[in-house]
This record gives sequence, C-alpha cells and structure tokens, in this order.
Amino acid sequence: MRVREVVNRIGAVLTALLCAALAVSPASAEDGYDLWLRYAPLEPSRAEQVREVTGPVAIRGEADGTVGAALDELERGLGRMLGDDRGRKSITLTRIADLSDGEGWLADSLVGAPEGSFAIAADPHAGTVIVAREDIGLLYGAFALLRHLASDRPLPEMARTYRPAMPLRLLNHWDNPDGHVERGYAGRSIFDWWHLPEKLDPEMIDYARANASIGINGAVVNNVNASPLFLTKRYLPKLKRLADAWRPYGVRLYISARFSAPKDIGGLDTADPLDPAVRAWWRDKADEIYAQIPDFGGFLVKANSEGQPGPQDYGRTHADGANMLAAAIGDRGTVIWRAFVYSAEDETDRAKQAYEEFVPLDGQFANNVIVQVKNGAIDFQPREPFHPIFGAMPNTRLMLEAQITREYLGQASGIAYLAPMWSEVLDAQTGRAGTVAHVIAPVGMAGVANTGSDRNWTGTHFDQANWYAFGRLAWDPSLSPQQIAREWAAQTFSRDETFLGKVVPMMLGSREAVADYMTPLGLAHQMATGHHYGPGPWVCDLARPEWNPCYYHAADSEGIGFDRTAYGSDALAQYAPEIARQWADPATMDERYLLWFHHLEWDHRMQDGRTLWDAMIARYDAGVAEVDAMAQTWAQLAPYVDPARHRAVSESLAIQQREARWWRDASIAYWRSLNGLPLPDGVRVPEHDLDYYRSLEFPEAPGK
Amino acid sequence: MRVREVVNRIGAVLTALLCAALAVSPASAEDGYDLWLRYAPLEPSRAEQVREVTGPVAIRGEADGTVGAALDELERGLGRMLGDDRGRKSITLTRIADLSDGEGWLADSLVGAPEGSFAIAADPHAGTVIVAREDIGLLYGAFALLRHLASDRPLPEMARTYRPAMPLRLLNHWDNPDGHVERGYAGRSIFDWWHLPEKLDPEMIDYARANASIGINGAVVNNVNASPLFLTKRYLPKLKRLADAWRPYGVRLYISARFSAPKDIGGLDTADPLDPAVRAWWRDKADEIYAQIPDFGGFLVKANSEGQPGPQDYGRTHADGANMLAAAIGDRGTVIWRAFVYSAEDETDRAKQAYEEFVPLDGQFANNVIVQVKNGAIDFQPREPFHPIFGAMPNTRLMLEAQITREYLGQASGIAYLAPMWSEVLDAQTGRAGTVAHVIAPVGMAGVANTGSDRNWTGTHFDQANWYAFGRLAWDPSLSPQQIAREWAAQTFSRDETFLGKVVPMMLGSREAVADYMTPLGLAHQMATGHHYGPGPWVCDLARPEWNPCYYHAADSEGIGFDRTAYGSDALAQYAPEIARQWADPATMDERYLLWFHHLEWDHRMQDGRTLWDAMIARYDAGVAEVDAMAQTWAQLAPYVDPARHRAVSESLAIQQREARWWRDASIAYWRSLNGLPLPDGVRVPEHDLDYYRSLEFPEAPGK
Repeated sequence: MRVREVVNRIGAVLTALLCAALAVSPASAEDGYDLWLRYAPLEPSRAEQVREVTGPVAIRGEADGTVGAALDELERGLGRMLGDDRGRKSITLTRIADLSDGEGWLADSLVGAPEGSFAIAADPHAGTVIVAREDIGLLYGAFALLRHLASDRPLPEMARTYRPAMPLRLLNHWDNPDGHVERGYAGRSIFDWWHLPEKLDPEMIDYARANASIGINGAVVNNVNASPLFLTKRYLPKLKRLADAWRPYGVRLYISARFSAPKDIGGLDTADPLDPAVRAWWRDKADEIYAQIPDFGGFLVKANSEGQPGPQDYGRTHADGANMLAAAIGDRGTVIWRAFVYSAEDETDRAKQAYEEFVPLDGQFANNVIVQVKNGAIDFQPREPFHPIFGAMPNTRLMLEAQITREYLGQASGIAYLAPMWSEVLDAQTGRAGTVAHVIAPVGMAGVANTGSDRNWTGTHFDQANWYAFGRLAWDPSLSPQQIAREWAAQTFSRDETFLGKVVPMMLGSREAVADYMTPLGLAHQMATGHHYGPGPWVCDLARPEWNPCYYHAADSEGIGFDRTAYGSDALAQYAPEIARQWADPATMDERYLLWFHHLEWDHRMQDGRTLWDAMIARYDAGVAEVDAMAQTWAQLAPYVDPARHRAVSESLAIQQREARWWRDASIAYWRSLNGLPLPDGVRVPEHDLDYYRSLEFPEAPGK
Repeated sequence: MRVREVVNRIGAVLTALLCAALAVSPASAEDGYDLWLRYAPLEPSRAEQVREVTGPVAIRGEADGTVGAALDELERGLGRMLGDDRGRKSITLTRIADLSDGEGWLADSLVGAPEGSFAIAADPHAGTVIVAREDIGLLYGAFALLRHLASDRPLPEMARTYRPAMPLRLLNHWDNPDGHVERGYAGRSIFDWWHLPEKLDPEMIDYARANASIGINGAVVNNVNASPLFLTKRYLPKLKRLADAWRPYGVRLYISARFSAPKDIGGLDTADPLDPAVRAWWRDKADEIYAQIPDFGGFLVKANSEGQPGPQDYGRTHADGANMLAAAIGDRGTVIWRAFVYSAEDETDRAKQAYEEFVPLDGQFANNVIVQVKNGAIDFQPREPFHPIFGAMPNTRLMLEAQITREYLGQASGIAYLAPMWSEVLDAQTGRAGTVAHVIAPVGMAGVANTGSDRNWTGTHFDQANWYAFGRLAWDPSLSPQQIAREWAAQTFSRDETFLGKVVPMMLGSREAVADYMTPLGLAHQMATGHHYGPGPWVCDLARPEWNPCYYHAADSEGIGFDRTAYGSDALAQYAPEIARQWADPATMDERYLLWFHHLEWDHRMQDGRTLWDAMIARYDAGVAEVDAMAQTWAQLAPYVDPARHRAVSESLAIQQREARWWRDASIAYWRSLNGLPLPDGVRVPEHDLDYYRSLEFPEAPGK
C-alpha cells in the first residue's frame, strides 16, 4: 500500500486505523508470541459497555512484587483494549486485610477459600473491585478480569468468587541442560541454562505471565530423565535467578532430581535411600537449595522406570526412596514421585503394572510426598481409559499427569485440541471416590509442557490452546472444553461470532479425528519406534515385548485387540466393579474403548450391525475426512485472522492432511496383510503397498 | 502514552510519528529480529535533505520476481525512514536494456562490470536512478540506497558505480537435518526441514532479504559433516521449496554432499570416484536435482578430513574425487572442495599438511571445481597468519573460508567484531600473487554462518555485525572494518554521533581483546576439548597429537611456542621467501605472531625489553581490561539504545567479563605450574588454583 496516497486521500481520521495496520507491518507481524495475552482493542460498543464498570486502576496498600505485576498487566491489557479512556468508574485491587469498615461483605465469600482465590465485585459507585487474601489472588484476579473482557463474556457474569479446584497446578518440562527437549516439537528449550545466571531472557517473564494468567503456579524445569547437573553448585545460581524472576508471578520452581546424584556428583559410592551418608547428602543439598531459593517447590522423581536409577537398585521400595527425599526437604516443599513404571516381572499386561507396584504401598508415603499418575495406564495415547490407580490409593496424595506436548497425537502437525481428552479423564467416575477430578482435588495436576524456543512458544499456533486449556482445567475441571476453546480463540484470534462459531467446533472435533486416523476403536501404541512419529503396527521384534505395537494390537488373521477381561489379562479387575462392568461387554460398552479391553474377530458385529473390519475402516476414513474438513473450515476463516498466522495454520493443516492419510493407509495395508479381507465397496485403496510404509525412515525426527 | 488525547491535541501530522512509537510497543519490543534492516525514521533535517533527491518509486519494464522484491524493500524502507512524504523527485529502477535514447551515459560505467553490479546516479530533474544489467543488480541497488540513507552517509557519495569484488559470496551453514547446528550458538537451525515443503517459515524470506542486502548470493544449507539425507528423494521437494523462495533474492541453494552417498543411500557397494556406477549415480542425482532446481548452486564437500569419507578411501586423490562430481554437475554448477585436511602421515606440524596435500594437485582440478581454504593453516583461531596455500596454487580456483560463528572466539558471549581479523587476512601480501584478496578475487569467499533460531538470529546482538561484515567484505574487501562497523551500528542501533563515536572503537578493539585474554602473542588452539569452550592448555593426552593444546604451545619449564622456523617444522618455508622473512626473526617481526612461529625461553627479551613472561601476562591483563572497558562503555550508551537490547548486551558482556578472567587466570595458573615464575609486582593472582580450572566440566556446552 502506498502510504502517502492513502493518507492524502482519506485524511487524519483514518490515520489512526492506518496505525493499527502498520502495527501489523512485516517487522512486527503477528507471530503468536503474545499467546492469548494479545488484548486486541475492543469493538467500540463493547468498549463503551466496559467503561461503565471500569476506570483508572487503584491499589490499596503495598504495590510491589506480585501486586506490581498485577498493575502492570492491567495497564498493558486495558491500554490495548480500551485505549486511553479507561472508563468512568475505577478498578480497585485490595487485600482482605486492607478492606475498610463496611466493606467486609466483599470478603465473605473468601472465608476458608484456598490460596489464590479471589472475588470480583461490581460496586455501583466505585466500579469493579478485586479482593483477595493473598497478593497472588489479586494477580489472578487481574488476569481474570482481562480474560473476561478480552473474550467478550457478558459483563454481569464477571462478578463472582473464583477458587482454584486444586492447590498444585504444575508444568513439567522435559528439557535437558543442553537445550534439547525430549518430546519437544517447538524448537529448543526455553531455558537458557548456558547463559544464566548473568542473562535472563525477557521470555522468562512472559512465560511466567502466561502461566499466572491461567493459574499455573509451579514449573519443574528439567526432564524427568534427569541430569544431575541441576543439583550441582554451578547450577544453583542459575536456578535462583529464575526463581527470583518468577516469584512475583506465583510460579514456584521445582527440579527433577536424579536419584543416583549422591553417586553421580556427590562422591558417595551408593545412593541407597537408607544409607545415612546418602540421607545426609540429600539433606545438605536441600539446605543448600533452600538457602538460595526459600520457596523452592521440591523434587520430581522418575525412579526405576525406563532405565532411570531408583531405590529398587538397593532393594528398597518406592516409598523408601520418596520418604528419604521427603525427610531431606521437610515441610519446605514436596517430593513428587512418578507412578509411571513398567519394569515388573509380570509381562502379560503393561497396563496392570503401575497399579500392582504402587497400590500395595498405599499409606506408606510421607505427608509431603505426592504420587503422580498419568491419565491412563499405558502412556498418553490418543484415548485411554482413566488410570485404575485413581481411587485405589485412598491414603496417598495422588496427582494427575497429563501430556500437553503431543508426543502421540501428531507432534507439531495440524490441530489436536486436547481439552476433550483431559475432561474425559477428569470426569470419569472411579466408582470408589467420585470422579478423577475429585480424587486429585486435594493435590493437583501436572502437564508435560509443549513450550519451546519457537517464536509462538508451542510450534503451532493451535498448540497454544493446549497450554491454555491445561491451566484452565487445573484451576477448574468443571469448565467445558467448549468454553475454554471459545475464550482461548476469542483472545488469541478474533471475537467475531462467525469466526468463533466455526473455529470452536473445529477444535472440539480435532482430537477425535486424531484418535480415528491413528488408533480407532480403542487401539493404542501403534506408532513407530523411538521418535514415535508415524505408524508402525508391524513392529514386533523389539527387545521387550511391551515396546512393540504388535503387543498392543494382538492382531492376526482371525482378529484384533488386547483382551483385558477375565479371559485375558484381567486388567479390568483393577477397576471398581461397577466401572469394570461398563467395559466388560462389547455389546453394550462405549465402543471407543472396544479394542483396549477386548480381542475380537474381524467379523465381530458392532452395535450398529457392521463388522469390526468395516467399522474400523469407517473410523480411519472419518478421521481423514475430519482433517480435510478442518482445512476447508480454516480456509474460510482467512478474513478473521492476520495473514501470517492464517498461513502458518494452513500449512500445518496441509501436513496433517498428509499424515492422516499415511496413518490410515499404512494401518489398513498392514491389517489387510494379516486378515486378507477385501476393502468395502467404494473405500479408497491405500496409496502405497505395505513395503513402502515399512521402509520409511526418519532418522532426524524431532523430540526423541 | 494516551493515544486519543495526543491525536486530538496535535492532529494528523504527528500521528505518523505516533505510529512509529507504537511500532515499538512492549508487544513488539526491539528484539533484534529486523537485523540492520530496521529503517528507523530519519531525523527531520536529514529527511528533508533526502527528500531533495528521492520521491515515489518507479520501475521501467517488468516488476515481478527480483525487481518486485526491490520495490517491496524500497516501499518498506522509505516508508519507515521517510513516512508518507517520499520526496519531491523520484527513485527510478531501470535495467540497461530499458534505458531510452540519451540515457546511455547511465550505463557507461557498467560495461564489462561483473554480474550484480549497479550504478546509482543523481539526476537533477528525475532524482535518483538505479541502473543495472541484471535484475539482481537492481535489488542490490535498492539495498545500497537504503543502507546509504539509513547509515547517515553523505548523500553526494551515493552516486557511483558498485561492483562486487568476487563472484561467489556464500554462507556455509553447519546445520544438521535434526536442527542441531555444529558450532552454532544461536539456538537451533533456521531451516525447518521437518516441516518443509508444506511449511515455509516467513523467516526464510527475511533471511534471503538480509543476505541480499549485503550481497550474499548463495547458501550451503547443511553441515560439511554431511548427512546423506539431503541427497534423498524425500528431501528434494524441501530443497526446491527453499530455492524457489530465495530465487528472487539472488540466493542460490547449495548442499554439502556426503562423498559416500552412493553407498549410504544409493545401494552401491562402493563410492570410488572412478567406478562407472558411482559416476552414473552422481550424474543421475545431479540431473534429478537440476530438474527441480534449475539454478542449484552445487556441492560443497569435506572429504578425507576428520573422519569424513572421501576419494582417498579408494586410493584416489582429492582431484579425482572433485572432478568426478564436477563431471556430474557439468556447467550447471560448482563443486567446492575443502582443503581443511590434517590426516597426513607427517605429524610434525599440522599447519603444514593441507599445503603438502593440495599444492601438488595444482592444475589438476576441473574448471568448475573450487578449492575452499580456511583463512589460516590451523582452524579459525583468534589470530593466524594467512594460509600458505593462498598464492601457491596459481592454476586452481581458490576460495577463502572464514568463520562467522565464534567457535574459538567466545562463542555467544559478549562482543568480538571479526572484520579486523578478516581484513588482516584479506590484506595480507602473499608474496606471489598480490594480497589474499587478489588471489580469491576471481572466485569468492565463504563464511561459516552464525545464524540460528534465536529471535535475533545470531545469539547476541553484536554477532549480527559479523554476518553483516562478512557480506560487506566479500562484496568489497577494501572496505575498512571501521566503516563497516559504523554503517552497521548506525542502521542497527542509532545514528547519533556520540553513540557511534563510542561504539565503533569498542567494536574495533573487541577481537584483539579476545586474542589477548585467550591466546596472546601468537598462541593458538588452547581451548578445552570437544565443545571448545573455555581454556584447556593442560590437555596433553588426546589420541592424536595435534588434538592437544600441549602440541600447540609446546611449553615446559624453559619456554613456550611452536618452532616453525627452519630449526623446527619449517612451515615458514611454505610461504614466499619475502613473507617468510618477515616472521623469521623475533627481534623484528610483528610480535602478535611470535609464538606461532617461534619457541622461546620464558625470559626471552621482547622488542620493548620486557621478558616474554611479563609481556604475556600484560597481554592477558590487557584483554581482561579491554572487556571491562567495553562493559563500561556500553553502560554509558543506554540513552541511545532501546532497553531490551541494551540490557541483553549488558548481560552478555557480564558473561564475557567472567570468561575473560577465567581464560586469563587458568592460563597463567597453568604456565606457572610449568615455569615456576613469580608474578610481576602488582599483578593479580589467579582466583583459583590450577586444579579448580582443570576440574571444570561442561557436558551441556552448546554447538558440539
């Protein structure tokens, strides 16, 4: 556009609009860096409504640290959304302790509310008041107010009390000190250990802002396959600088601790948790850390799992190991011990092993130990029934581990919005202690982060929605995936109703599409080895049986599926009887879990009368069709999205279209090599033969 | 700032200025992404001067492709620098072929000028005219005009003819397909092979713009330690998409070719360059590439060097290998064959080996083969005498290889501006064929890139200057490091004379500081093993002698230095006699090369009468002091630089201050362990003992 011509012709009034256009010049095109905190200017009519209840920001009492961050954020957000006219009332932030006589009613709803709770009240005279007991509640309140405005929610709904459903809402970063991110698909680690402590990337502040905006209050900064470097003296100043930077935002720093550290870096010849020298080493180490980082969160430990060291190396139990570390930390922090193990002797069913190993230890863990359990009993598959440990360890503090990074759900291609998957698990009835959400309510939820050095943080723009949704669900598991998608998309892209009306359903269907084209009807773990990229149902010869896709599909010329009924591994028996019953009968169960629990013949009759074979093919095709539909929908949405991000998403969907076909074609080609069945009439023949799919190699695949 | 108030008060004229301010809002703080192409608004008086010779942009003839890119860039650059008022004349781009009668004089200076040349002419009536024979000359002319304006150079000096000094001006990327960059300190690779061809990062266009702006006309996109993946069918569409994207900017795509590819991926059982099947395989491969990428640049090959495969595996010579590939490519492109070898039998002096291996092959290489020679005979040390091959192979096309990434000069810490180092080499008299610049003038110059996924491209802001300086020197080796630093800093940070008066001298002294605190007085190769980070003069036990720092310093209780005179390895004899003479006598030579050529006693008297020991310590201290001075200078420059970039540089200099002390202290501690000499009066004692420095480990160091 020729700037001069335009200006001369249309004059000064339009110059302001031109400014807005220039702000999206190539130099600062929308690149996704701002995440959902873009604070796009409100539409004029909405802005006028908002100004009826807002105005200049006031704070009672001290305004440094966390409250200073709240003020900065309100300044930034209101400035961008409202411009210079902030409204005719005011926005007041006040701690309960600073309320004056006669304002006590503002705090009533916060009596006994958990840490971080806050209330937003509408005062006909003063405008909007945010009240909280702790400073962090005021910061959360500021973000809630901005979110409410930015996502175009009805203003009257803003005034209420907000309470986090669980105390710990953590990210787990699988980041290595050299910058590699295990299962990371968004570039390198966001943590620049190499240049810390002198250099603190501004990204570290924006990361903390993003987390605080959705209530995330802790981050484990290194991989569970842990390097002992993080426990060395050289790393402590680095950790301290980060912890100091994050403190105002309420993000506590945790590290993954390598269990063998006393041997690796401590000069001891054992890491036996009952050895006095080992116990002293960890106590001293904890003291050293807490002297520098008084609010250090604690240790996350992956022990005796996939080759990691642990207490079993010395004939001790998981409880022995966890309790030793818990004693070192004392009441200053927490030991989070992962239940992701599958090294047991019984190799009949990997899905049973964590339960068998951990449930007998119920009641043996110290008070400041948490056992962190993945959502399902295998490993973050596109669909798994909830983990049977939930509800089965009533005397242990259990925390849910979800995976935000899409290791098994397409990595960094296309769109797979994961909130529906997590809600499925959170809402699942355990039959013993209410839903999974009820079980973890006293403890918390951890998400394996999908952040990286990519400018948009998460590799694709839509993967930002998974970071967002994780935080929102951890704060309030009762939020619907639909509401979360809507508020995310409104803040991130556009508040236009036409746009939201198309993009939200597209997001809601995206994970089911992935489950369909990768592993329909309850299949699982069919990916290629190592990098987990692409299909590998033919892989049957890896050293351990449970590493092989063949182990999971158990397919042959007769049938397919893993029999977990009483006739098979009886993993069903790990669930409460009423829950087990719902999955016991193929004729009545939810068929999305069919092959997870049952081995069935290819001509098994589905509930709608089709054969299993026909139904499977239909699901593969439904998945591919859904991805095609997403690409078409997105193409229509170009008018609502800036060109740079629209194009990036289009290109990413094109990759997903290719990959969906590949999964579908390779899988069908393999099943046909076993069952010899014809394709139903009109069904597309796989593009290549099986040998082609088997021959594909990706030595450079990311995230391994 | 309150947008509405300002607009109302001061009206439309100032709104344009406001736009500029908004463009630097917190959301798009200066992060270095724009490199030297920021086009900051001109100061009003300068803008008025400029408008006397500029105006709307006009193009004669077709304006797509390269010329379209030139128009876009002028639109962007003039728009940002001048706003909507582009001046009272015009800027006309015209090919020689489109000149009208009577305008022939505009092309006179371009008769016989090399490809890419252009002229800028001042026409009292029309304004400014850019003339070129090829479209790429018009693009280079557009960038030259913008650079001239943006770096505040006197306007009359703009009108002249611009000719590249050498035809090939290439970047060599040591980037692996998995995103790792060997010797990369700026994050991951900028090339997203994983998502190509569907996804083309916008960064790929900005990369091409940056290169074109400084005349770089080719890029080798993968590591010389080459993966054969780049020669597979799967990668060809990826390469094609990049080549298509870069074509308008005149950046030709090259790849590093793995010599054993016919075995690795071709199904042959040999890669013998004289084997007919091998020759046919490469010919077919070249045809396959050229069918997709008609302007494919060619192959870069590292052969029989540091474990890479090569023709010597089959008893063939480097010429046999290079000529086989040259025959496959034919006149469509070039084979660039690296002379970086040190596998010879003679292990008395690694510095002699490349010369001994290559000079006998002079005249045996095909016409489309280039031999690429590093600036010095060892490996990109902070200071090396020029490589003796330059001038010694008159019948071979020789190209200079410089290293932009700072493998041995501090990696991504602080500041080391490398133009003085490269000018030292380019200006060096070979004694046989003029200067090194003369030797390479018919061929070109390659720089090992320092780009990465970091938002500022190069890890630190000042490392952008090295990318810039490489391109500028390759275009014109007679440019002074001072001029290049000045124009870079003016475009990148500020045109303020006070700022430039301080920052340019700081840049000019920075490389000497590094040489001083790392390897003073001609020492070399004293870094730690593998990652090359930090000092390791005590390393003496690596498998091959020439891997050890001890091999290079040859220090003991008596003295230090590598004797390359006739009494030692006689590497001096590889130089022309008049050149060798200048380095033969410690009493008269440039002492900055002293220990490169001479082994001397610790109490050797320097030309100023001090002992060698005292002089060495003085140099170490001078290096540390210079870094301290840089940090102080930079602190004073805060008023001239945006806060984000100022802080980032400050933090980086703080790291360099720590590292400078470490190099100095560790080195002195080690030398004292050998010579037992006291420190001169008043000299600071190393902070730690030698054992401490020896014990430091950096398993996570980047770039390995």
